Amino acid sequence: MNVVIIGLGLIGGSFALDLQEHYDEIAVFGIDANEDHIKSAIALGIIQEKTSFERLNEADVVLVAIPVDAQLQVLPKVLDAINDHALVIDVGSTKEKICALLNTHPKRRNYLAAHPIAGTEYSGPTAAIKNLFSNKTNIICEVEKTAFKLQEKALDIFYKLGMRIRYMDAVSHDKHIAYVSHLSHISAFMLGKTVIKKEKNERDIFDMAGSGFASTVRLAKSSPAMWAPIFEHNKTNVIEALDGYIENLQQFKKLMENDQFTAIYEEMANTNRIKEILNGINL
Amino acid sequence: MNVVIIGLGLIGGSFALDLQEHYDEIAVFGIDANEDHIKSAIALGIIQEKTSFERLNEADVVLVAIPVDAQLQVLPKVLDAINDHALVIDVGSTKEKICALLNTHPKRRNYLAAHPIAGTEYSGPTAAIKNLFSNKTNIICEVEKTAFKLQEKALDIFYKLGMRIRYMDAVSHDKHIAYVSHLSHISAFMLGKTVIKKEKNERDIFDMAGSGFASTVRLAKSSPAMWAPIFEHNKTNVIEALDGYIENLQQFKKLMENDQFTAIYEEMANTNRIKEILNGINL
Repeated sequence: MNVVIIGLGLIGGSFALDLQEHYDEIAVFGIDANEDHIKSAIALGIIQEKTSFERLNEADVVLVAIPVDAQLQVLPKVLDAINDHALVIDVGSTKEKICALLNTHPKRRNYLAAHPIAGTEYSGPTAAIKNLFSNKTNIICEVEKTAFKLQEKALDIFYKLGMRIRYMDAVSHDKHIAYVSHLSHISAFMLGKTVIKKEKNERDIFDMAGSGFASTVRLAKSSPAMWAPIFEHNKTNVIEALDGYIENLQQFKKLMENDQFTAIYEEMANTNRIKEILNGINL
Repeated sequence: MNVVIIGLGLIGGSFALDLQEHYDEIAVFGIDANEDHIKSAIALGIIQEKTSFERLNEADVVLVAIPVDAQLQVLPKVLDAINDHALVIDVGSTKEKICALLNTHPKRRNYLAAHPIAGTEYSGPTAAIKNLFSNKTNIICEVEKTAFKLQEKALDIFYKLGMRIRYMDAVSHDKHIAYVSHLSHISAFMLGKTVIKKEKNERDIFDMAGSGFASTVRLAKSSPAMWAPIFEHNKTNVIEALDGYIENLQQFKKLMENDQFTAIYEEMANTNRIKEILNGINL
């Protein structure tokens, strides 16, 4: 199996490592706008060698793991370049715009839209790790638009990597992911900003921060190059989620201003059921 | 050394476990409003047996680890009850109101105000763990108001448990801790509330949540009985921190509404330096 990974970052790189673990007859090639990433990916055993768009017709599987704005540019070119039997998978964090763009592409049936809910706050080929996808949810959108044989090929890969598959339409995917993923990132980035701004002249203060702060602000380490395009793609849903969040914060503040600490207790007690919800998440 | 732990929860219980590890000649007794916690603490080896306020005059060290509203009721009674050589430590998450209350107490010099920045989102004696305080920051307030010999005794305990000591006045403590701890909790609780509210009829959606959401919302598992009084004690500072946070979120939303995604990229890139800050935190 000839595999090309476009985008040798955390996701593309981790995918390549696992594919080599699970398939005997496999060659993995890479494309990346950053020449250093290619060198690093070869050194780390993520890919065997560099390839190019001109040679994409040799690929059986192309995995595209780049920021979602770049996906809109790159995916049509990939579909134009591949042979008729190749499978193209994108793993972007938004699906509506990408699926809409490719909807009328002559090779739409060669394309499978996926979103593995996996990752860390780190990026680049050095962030790639084995077994990143084990026991993680992978959301597949508009599966019926992908050729049956290529669905089968994709599922074989996903199962071998240990993923749990969920099917969803692209519009619902983007709506819900705004709440369970995109909002968390904004929440963390703005928490980080608020604290850094307040404490800019008092670096000692971070000695007072513990694991709670670290956990809540962790996602503020994430890559802006990845996340700015996600927010742009999912603008409407993210703004709706942000509105709800800001409204809840304002209401909490109002309860504090009015000394309604019993109501604040209730707010927190009601939200404690996040415990059971989190217990159901495969981390 | 006769030690009495008042409040056999995560902090009090973990303290008791470590004290027994590091002191040979030690007896640890417990007081808790919840009779089940006492039974559980004895079963778990956290305390040897139950004691009472009437017998507090036998104690060498009293650690008070209860919600901060209860501290205001209990600490004066503890100071009234102890012998002249005993050390009383409170480990509450706010310090200004407690220090102000005890400022004129005849036994003020027997009291040391501390805040170990350690814990988890769990509570009760079953949440107690060994080495919880190892390499954690412990903030001591108004140390000059504690008798020198008792400072020494307290430092001996804190060093044996592996803590890093920082000295601070109570007003500054409460101001800064609002940013690096209290705000994170509100941020997490309101994130949890927003997502639960949106997705209340679609439990499957939480299949879409990954480790990022789990990390950001983790503190929303925290005990309301502990946190409502903290917010009440630190009302002014927490409202100020919340104001800054809400303002930053609103500004982020406005940038999104105006399609200023380059500015959003910059916001995130600037906040990325939380990486270096977090690297400096001992977790």
